[in-house]
Amino acid sequence: MGIVLGPNRYGKAETRVVRVSRAADGTHALTDLNVSVALSGDLVDTHLTGDNANVLPTDTQKNTVYAFAKQHGIASPEAFGLLLARHFTASQETITGARVEIEEYPWNRLGPHSFSREGSLVRTASVRISSSGPASGPASAPAPAPASAPASESASAPAEVFGGLTGLTLLNSTDSEFTGFIVDDYTTLAETSDRILATAVDARWRFSSLPADFNAVFGAARDAMIAAFAGTYSYSLQQTLFAMGKAVLEACPDLAEIRLRLPNKHHFAVDCTPFGLDAAPEVFHADDRPYGLIEGTVLREG
Amino acid sequence: MGIVLGPNRYGKAETRVVRVSRAADGTHALTDLNVSVALSGDLVDTHLTGDNANVLPTDTQKNTVYAFAKQHGIASPEAFGLLLARHFTASQETITGARVEIEEYPWNRLGPHSFSREGSLVRTASVRISSSGPASGPASAPAPAPASAPASESASAPAEVFGGLTGLTLLNSTDSEFTGFIVDDYTTLAETSDRILATAVDARWRFSSLPADFNAVFGAARDAMIAAFAGTYSYSLQQTLFAMGKAVLEACPDLAEIRLRLPNKHHFAVDCTPFGLDAAPEVFHADDRPYGLIEGTVLREG
Amino acid sequence: MGIVLGPNRYGKAETRVVRVSRAADGTHALTDLNVSVALSGDLVDTHLTGDNANVLPTDTQKNTVYAFAKQHGIASPEAFGLLLARHFTASQETITGARVEIEEYPWNRLGPHSFSREGSLVRTASVRISSSGPASGPASAPAPAPASAPASESASAPAEVFGGLTGLTLLNSTDSEFTGFIVDDYTTLAETSDRILATAVDARWRFSSLPADFNAVFGAARDAMIAAFAGTYSYSLQQTLFAMGKAVLEACPDLAEIRLRLPNKHHFAVDCTPFGLDAAPEVFHADDRPYGLIEGTVLREG
Amino acid sequence: MGIVLGPNRYGKAETRVVRVSRAADGTHALTDLNVSVALSGDLVDTHLTGDNANVLPTDTQKNTVYAFAKQHGIASPEAFGLLLARHFTASQETITGARVEIEEYPWNRLGPHSFSREGSLVRTASVRISSSGPASGPASAPAPAPASAPASESASAPAEVFGGLTGLTLLNSTDSEFTGFIVDDYTTLAETSDRILATAVDARWRFSSLPADFNAVFGAARDAMIAAFAGTYSYSLQQTLFAMGKAVLEACPDLAEIRLRLPNKHHFAVDCTPFGLDAAPEVFHADDRPYGLIEGTVLREG
Repeated sequence: MGIVLGPNRYGKAETRVVRVSRAADGTHALTDLNVSVALSGDLVDTHLTGDNANVLPTDTQKNTVYAFAKQHGIASPEAFGLLLARHFTASQETITGARVEIEEYPWNRLGPHSFSREGSLVRTASVRISSSGPASGPASAPAPAPASAPASESASAPAEVFGGLTGLTLLNSTDSEFTGFIVDDYTTLAETSDRILATAVDARWRFSSLPADFNAVFGAARDAMIAAFAGTYSYSLQQTLFAMGKAVLEACPDLAEIRLRLPNKHHFAVDCTPFGLDAAPEVFHADDRPYGLIEGTVLREG
Repeated sequence: MGIVLGPNRYGKAETRVVRVSRAADGTHALTDLNVSVALSGDLVDTHLTGDNANVLPTDTQKNTVYAFAKQHGIASPEAFGLLLARHFTASQETITGARVEIEEYPWNRLGPHSFSREGSLVRTASVRISSSGPASGPASAPAPAPASAPASESASAPAEVFGGLTGLTLLNSTDSEFTGFIVDDYTTLAETSDRILATAVDARWRFSSLPADFNAVFGAARDAMIAAFAGTYSYSLQQTLFAMGKAVLEACPDLAEIRLRLPNKHHFAVDCTPFGLDAAPEVFHADDRPYGLIEGTVLREG
Repeated sequence: MGIVLGPNRYGKAETRVVRVSRAADGTHALTDLNVSVALSGDLVDTHLTGDNANVLPTDTQKNTVYAFAKQHGIASPEAFGLLLARHFTASQETITGARVEIEEYPWNRLGPHSFSREGSLVRTASVRISSSGPASGPASAPAPAPASAPASESASAPAEVFGGLTGLTLLNSTDSEFTGFIVDDYTTLAETSDRILATAVDARWRFSSLPADFNAVFGAARDAMIAAFAGTYSYSLQQTLFAMGKAVLEACPDLAEIRLRLPNKHHFAVDCTPFGLDAAPEVFHADDRPYGLIEGTVLREG
Repeated sequence: MGIVLGPNRYGKAETRVVRVSRAADGTHALTDLNVSVALSGDLVDTHLTGDNANVLPTDTQKNTVYAFAKQHGIASPEAFGLLLARHFTASQETITGARVEIEEYPWNRLGPHSFSREGSLVRTASVRISSSGPASGPASAPAPAPASAPASESASAPAEVFGGLTGLTLLNSTDSEFTGFIVDDYTTLAETSDRILATAVDARWRFSSLPADFNAVFGAARDAMIAAFAGTYSYSLQQTLFAMGKAVLEACPDLAEIRLRLPNKHHFAVDCTPFGLDAAPEVFHADDRPYGLIEGTVLREG
């Protein structure tokens, strides 16, 4: 029984590219990305013998990111990822698959060429192209199984396109209960009819059709999530998760599904009665670990 | 076209449990884990209506981690993960799947009850049990497709068991080349016949059979990887990756496959000739980003 | 020559307290702090013999933070720090010095009891009280030397009060030069008449008098810094630093001095001419390390 | 009352330099540093008018770090810091003060030119030179007040030299009590006669004379600290701190003082009696925040 190479990919991770565009009136626009490229294809030789004839260097991938930012600009992280993924798979015979993961760091405008970044919110995009049938990523790497038909925007290069965000922390200081759960030999938790519910949203949505304006979809999805979080009287974080996902799909017809990963950032009420104070829960300890972690996908029925 | 719940799971993440075992002679042993549990099953109601009748609280999961550490001890992270995963799926009718991810932080012994932790190396283990057929994790969550038959150690509870490590940084200061690669319009990289090769190993291996001594397998796998890294004259990091994976499988017959994720931690030679110094590459800039990222799986032929 | 105890202090660090205040109309307000207390005084015995008779446990300090948040509310981090520092030094005979460091995490209001935190900006406050003359912190700990008379707000408890912020990233995409510097044997840098200037502000200001509204001073100082950064045509980051500090002191008469710590977050123009593109600097590499670091104090003349 | 510039400094932070030395027999040695330089002097003009005639660019400082590593090698972080600090203050008329902070990342040897870095332990060094009297760092920057006469190793350039380490975690699983402390209205902590004592050492020692072999002093100081931690039956972490500092000074005659910063990494015993288990404290929750923080200086009597 021999030992062989399985799924594999390689690329340049975390190229930090900032694009400045100068309008005629002296106003600048700024786009700030972190781009990670992973390519796959006919790469057995470099693994087995070190023959790199089929290898496009990761340094070249980095250069391509910079050159494309210069030449084409960055309309949106999704569109930029598509440009890159199509280029790598179309231009190199030995490269048949590309995955481009992008983080965008939003900046606020302060003046014609001044900007501030106060935020921890990060917009994300991911584009995956395979011109050779089955995905060629490693077996145990993240591999989303499309719940409905994959986004198809050209005959020759089927691509999956994802948008999303991380780093958005939300908190309701009431309208959250947790009751009626299973009680077993290891259960000590008391039911509660009024607690703080807080989470840091990690969301990824998949496009079923490619919109004219990816940025508008991003804004609509983000706003729908926030409104659903704030507007849901919650009996479990799972319920809030489903409400958030449903709101995004209702607001964004181009989306097929959304995956949400919501840590339950526990805020434990501190009992101040030993200090001669009343029992009203007004002071909380924001705990770090452990934390609940609720993960779920919401999608359109087939 | 309705909007429905897709794959989902929930649990308590990052329970930091430390187990002290006291021998009769006053010698203590220490085990230091970070345990993350994720459960799946019949969880539609909590998402759609907030009815938690099928929900085992994440707080109870945390308690169970502590209680099992107390009652059963921690023979190895893999064995402890199996105990927990089997318990959750066996004891609750509504819970049909469990994933237990564990990090173990190794300590060095200083004395009978004194220990030091100098290390960034983390041992990892993962156990996945599903008593109801298909995996029930979210569509886009990491979902390793076993390349060979899954580990099967009991009739009633098929489990997949993984071991691994992160945080092991390795460096060869010579015996590394990179030449013969594709040159396209965006390539500026020069070939090199002598470079530093450095990486931080992220490895995960899958057991095809459950060994009597998980700790012995861990040691053998780690040592085989390190020896293969140091002993390979490298024409590409891919070649080194395959050599490391092959060495682990050769050393550990209980393993079916290994996935390696190797950042290429670039060390760029600094040109000191502008300062009147010779050109011998003796001084390097250890760069942060971007970095190459090589991912691959090595497995036994079916 | 004997070995003796020098300056020392101890306390509870990073108590994460969240205060919810409920108005009669159902509107909630939220204050989110990270409080670190350090006490000093007659603490020789606990160091030399382990006699803890003079030691107020750090657990008690934590309890006090919670109890004071409950009982007194949190008008501002500066005011809350003053309350705590005065309490510890006034209530315990053996404790003569207190340093309270506070981080406040700002939240945006989404609804009557819903909030979002998108921000990396952190407001800081520091209060130092010593009822026994000289500072008793460790010799090599941060020890600001007041440039003018210390804030004095009561006869019995002279306190120094500081405000500040961290995590505010600012960027000008033009109006920044760097020319006319020293050239020595190790200089290879070219002069530039147009570069990106970016920094992450770390500011700390000292109050000479205690204002009625600490929150108003915080807002005025923050806004003045941002406006000065955006409005300064910069020949060096030092020049921008001084302009920012001057603007804060001009806007805030209660402040005696401000210390600024400004990393020069380098954005290097990428040369895209090897790829057949023009030389206009539109694409930049946002580098991580090394970075320039400019530190300076701006203060009122004595 | 005017607004003026106060203490200031500037420099290049975090230059990541790796030095490879090749012996004739093919054996390599590796030194891995993170070097931060801060210079001070006659720098008013660059702050007030942007005139950079007195400014040695931070880019040049970076080049100097590389060139000196190439030309002189790196005997120890302390010696390398001295070389750099003396160079900057001696070679530039406008630069009168220099502070060089160095982190060294230790590597283990695997073979003649292979190395592993498993460790989180970081060795630190700091050198401060001022040829113009009083320290010129910012008022509120760390400013150690030497407890005894400053290290003086040449007539022209008085230097203070510090060594140290961070990232060394130590744990005793018994032989630690905490009793007899102050009880006030906010105290709920119970006394304990057997607890886990764990800390992550942050130590900085000051040399009173410059040894022939800085590396030997580092090893002796580290070993003395570890032995004192393990060997002390502790009634308070303060007591352990003093014992550790005393042991270092006794082992290292070249040291004048040592500052220790020891977080009390709380390990709370988990009560498993609700789960039908006995009360012996064998399982602990390793908590993140808040934590105790004990800081103190141990020094030789004047």
